[in-house]
Amino acid sequence: MTEETPEEVLAEARRWWHTDIIDVRPGEIDLRGYPVQELIGTVGFVDTIWLMLRGELPSHAQAALLEAALVASVDHGPQAPSIAIARMATTCGARINGAMASAINVLDDIHGGPGQQCMEIYLQIDAEAERTGDLGEAVRRVLKRQSDAGVAYIPGFGHRFHPLDPRTPRLLSLVDAAAADGSVDGRFAAIGRAVEDAISEGKSRRVPMNIDGATAVIYCELGFTPELGRGVFILSRSVGILAHAHEQMQQGGRIKGPVPKSIGYTYTGPARRSVPNERDK
Amino acid sequence: MTEETPEEVLAEARRWWHTDIIDVRPGEIDLRGYPVQELIGTVGFVDTIWLMLRGELPSHAQAALLEAALVASVDHGPQAPSIAIARMATTCGARINGAMASAINVLDDIHGGPGQQCMEIYLQIDAEAERTGDLGEAVRRVLKRQSDAGVAYIPGFGHRFHPLDPRTPRLLSLVDAAAADGSVDGRFAAIGRAVEDAISEGKSRRVPMNIDGATAVIYCELGFTPELGRGVFILSRSVGILAHAHEQMQQGGRIKGPVPKSIGYTYTGPARRSVPNERDK
Amino acid sequence: MTEETPEEVLAEARRWWHTDIIDVRPGEIDLRGYPVQELIGTVGFVDTIWLMLRGELPSHAQAALLEAALVASVDHGPQAPSIAIARMATTCGARINGAMASAINVLDDIHGGPGQQCMEIYLQIDAEAERTGDLGEAVRRVLKRQSDAGVAYIPGFGHRFHPLDPRTPRLLSLVDAAAADGSVDGRFAAIGRAVEDAISEGKSRRVPMNIDGATAVIYCELGFTPELGRGVFILSRSVGILAHAHEQMQQGGRIKGPVPKSIGYTYTGPARRSVPNERDK
Amino acid sequence: MTEETPEEVLAEARRWWHTDIIDVRPGEIDLRGYPVQELIGTVGFVDTIWLMLRGELPSHAQAALLEAALVASVDHGPQAPSIAIARMATTCGARINGAMASAINVLDDIHGGPGQQCMEIYLQIDAEAERTGDLGEAVRRVLKRQSDAGVAYIPGFGHRFHPLDPRTPRLLSLVDAAAADGSVDGRFAAIGRAVEDAISEGKSRRVPMNIDGATAVIYCELGFTPELGRGVFILSRSVGILAHAHEQMQQGGRIKGPVPKSIGYTYTGPARRSVPNERDK
Repeated sequence: MTEETPEEVLAEARRWWHTDIIDVRPGEIDLRGYPVQELIGTVGFVDTIWLMLRGELPSHAQAALLEAALVASVDHGPQAPSIAIARMATTCGARINGAMASAINVLDDIHGGPGQQCMEIYLQIDAEAERTGDLGEAVRRVLKRQSDAGVAYIPGFGHRFHPLDPRTPRLLSLVDAAAADGSVDGRFAAIGRAVEDAISEGKSRRVPMNIDGATAVIYCELGFTPELGRGVFILSRSVGILAHAHEQMQQGGRIKGPVPKSIGYTYTGPARRSVPNERDK
Repeated sequence: MTEETPEEVLAEARRWWHTDIIDVRPGEIDLRGYPVQELIGTVGFVDTIWLMLRGELPSHAQAALLEAALVASVDHGPQAPSIAIARMATTCGARINGAMASAINVLDDIHGGPGQQCMEIYLQIDAEAERTGDLGEAVRRVLKRQSDAGVAYIPGFGHRFHPLDPRTPRLLSLVDAAAADGSVDGRFAAIGRAVEDAISEGKSRRVPMNIDGATAVIYCELGFTPELGRGVFILSRSVGILAHAHEQMQQGGRIKGPVPKSIGYTYTGPARRSVPNERDK
Repeated sequence: MTEETPEEVLAEARRWWHTDIIDVRPGEIDLRGYPVQELIGTVGFVDTIWLMLRGELPSHAQAALLEAALVASVDHGPQAPSIAIARMATTCGARINGAMASAINVLDDIHGGPGQQCMEIYLQIDAEAERTGDLGEAVRRVLKRQSDAGVAYIPGFGHRFHPLDPRTPRLLSLVDAAAADGSVDGRFAAIGRAVEDAISEGKSRRVPMNIDGATAVIYCELGFTPELGRGVFILSRSVGILAHAHEQMQQGGRIKGPVPKSIGYTYTGPARRSVPNERDK
Repeated sequence: MTEETPEEVLAEARRWWHTDIIDVRPGEIDLRGYPVQELIGTVGFVDTIWLMLRGELPSHAQAALLEAALVASVDHGPQAPSIAIARMATTCGARINGAMASAINVLDDIHGGPGQQCMEIYLQIDAEAERTGDLGEAVRRVLKRQSDAGVAYIPGFGHRFHPLDPRTPRLLSLVDAAAADGSVDGRFAAIGRAVEDAISEGKSRRVPMNIDGATAVIYCELGFTPELGRGVFILSRSVGILAHAHEQMQQGGRIKGPVPKSIGYTYTGPARRSVPNERDK
């Protein structure tokens, strides 16, 4: 490799970080091309979220559906690990950014991730249905692949706590209304319902679509990738995380463990023993 | 302490975590008393943020000002450490929650914190001015206390990059309009401007209010505590963090360091030396 | 400012990140000047920790004391928030780095930080005693300053769980032995004991030095700064955090909250209410 | 389900968190059954790491090999994202726990994970070779499976920076010595070398085993699981992370971005445009 000139090295360095999202120059900040001061007070926060993630402003109908999904996912209470973590963190002296970070960090594959995984399943079904023209068959095929891969519970359906998730019917009705007036296609609502039918077949009780399955319908209808679906869920759940962290700061408490001292934990390890004088070489 | 009965221990354990924020029962989720399905599609995301943090729904004017502040703070580009951290994290294999967490974690005292510190200063001035009835004197007194405490730069004013922050005039005009129609008091806008005057006095160039100082005016007008002011900034900046993390995932890159290899870093430590055969006892 | 040449910009960029710690060139890695392959298998891990943090290899006596402090602090069980957070994180799908990060993040001012704060107090007393030559008076003066500043509990003393921390006598005896053979000075052991005497004066029960106070003695004797004292505690506690995270992965569990469902939490917020049709402007 | 009695609910709650690792009672702390004060000053830090992770004390030979691997992995300089993140974090006001957490969080699949993935490959080869008795064939088979699965680069081999990783020969010689005196089996060193041979076949330059491949040999020889292999790497790299975070605190710097301002970044997004007056419904 011939030696690069200083100008060439510099040019490479300037391009090391590159982005389509924001242009910052002295006195100027453009978000996806729009001067920020034109957005402030004119364009809403949800519109801005869409703009930052997708590159263009959404239609009003798109923003409304995204807004509904964001409102739906903000919290699920102190029993949720993310919420408990935020609360405990503040009692250790963590400031609000640290409490939020420790909590957001665990919105991972099992706690928050199901929405993303559910979207992937919907998208597979959609591709399959587009290929064959048969939705029912597409659903059967994709669910069988999941089952063969060892997936016991289809993400997005059922709930460890709610026999019927109160958020699902409301969200689906908003999607149906948007589909009726042509704002969205509606095919992912059909896919979601078809999956619920297929999963519930032969069971004594219906396995209902939960918040992850319902928001996954919305994010797919709106054209988000599964990755961004998880990201948007995180933006929403951050609100609950912040609220609980702040409330815990008001309540006080020092180094608050998960259970009170009177409950404690159970030690199941070896009985007390002495450190040997000699050990194997 | 007499032995507690099982019932007493249980009752204490049930109260160990307690909250005013959310009531979750099978089939029901109430946020600050409102069934979540009544909020979805009816109440906006910014209204919901306010509800979760403050306990009541905001007026339209309050929500509009909060929304403006949220839109204003979403991003400041890949040179911001939080953004750079999110981008680098994804190239290490971190998923979106991990990239966001590592980034949000550093929205600390110096990078994000200034808004909170600026609010504290405004609130001190407000308390002082209420006591004496003299705003100018209150500003002088509080700034002097800061200076005596060794604070060189009043948070919220000046900017390392922008001679005039393009977000400030727009935000202040929205506050002025809200004050004009009685939606907010307006006294923190007066305080912020008075601080800018005092800081700029005798300087060759004006030291302008920056985004932290302007959003601090808004959060004080809206009655947020400084702690929640930092929290709300974090909700906003999380949008930019997510956008950049996602974009970096699209761009690819493996284990991307802060600078390209051709730039590298400078080693300033000791010259190469050999490990001694013997060391002091 | 006259325009910089490409060479000048490049030179500045190469110095943007600079360090005394490590020199990495193709085929070579030197830690504080020592080729890493000379350290491997020759110099211990604790010696390496000292080398990386302090710049030179420690004496055997110094390494032995640091090692004792590191062993002492590795864990305090699932009731510690950091440990509980690591355990809950894994049940959310977090991998080992994420679980460790969320946990380490909360080793903050109240949970881990006391060692650092205790060191600061010891150092103040040491400076005062050096000035006046009177240890008792120095202790009284510094403790009074703490009390005047509103500090209720001197960090490093007393313990919410242990009437006598089993780690303290052993650690102090190691310091005493090292002082006896001249490996360390011993004056911080004297300071720590003097603080325990002063705090316990007039109380019905002695307020014993705890693990933070004892390791603070060691770190001060060894010449660590308070900041590095916290850092070293974190290295130690990371071992327990890793062990518990890994054990939880073996135990399984999905989205494990802080308490079992049968305990739950208590809702103390407003009664159920309906979203108003209209809201204030 | 019949109603549980308070005693039953309590018993379940006490077992909610259970562990073999540590028993904490007032005045007593036992790690895997050993009173902590018996370990302090008697058992080394590396021995304690082994005890906490594996449940028993290691032999001296086992501890020595683990120690070598820990020393080898402590740092790779400010170009490593984890190190850069720790450094940037401190300039944002993060304290040492926050800087370390943000950094450790990104020791993920690509940056730190390769050791774990390499162990998985070694273990597959080991199982295959045990089955067939033919190491060369086992290596070929497992590598082919990786290749068929789309894995381009076998983790643990090659290096983006070092033509020959200076840590590898030293580490392997220690394993060879331990195998020679019967302290370890030696079959994973054979596997690692066989993989290096197979990968390098037909290439113009040898693809050498790197630090991840070499420590993976050690961790497999020592019977660690791949998960714990990643955990142990994290304990090691935390040392470098701490050292760099602390050094950056000494160097100062405020909100330090990845590159100096004179380098900046490149905006590749849309040209400036105006927010439309009207948008689609």
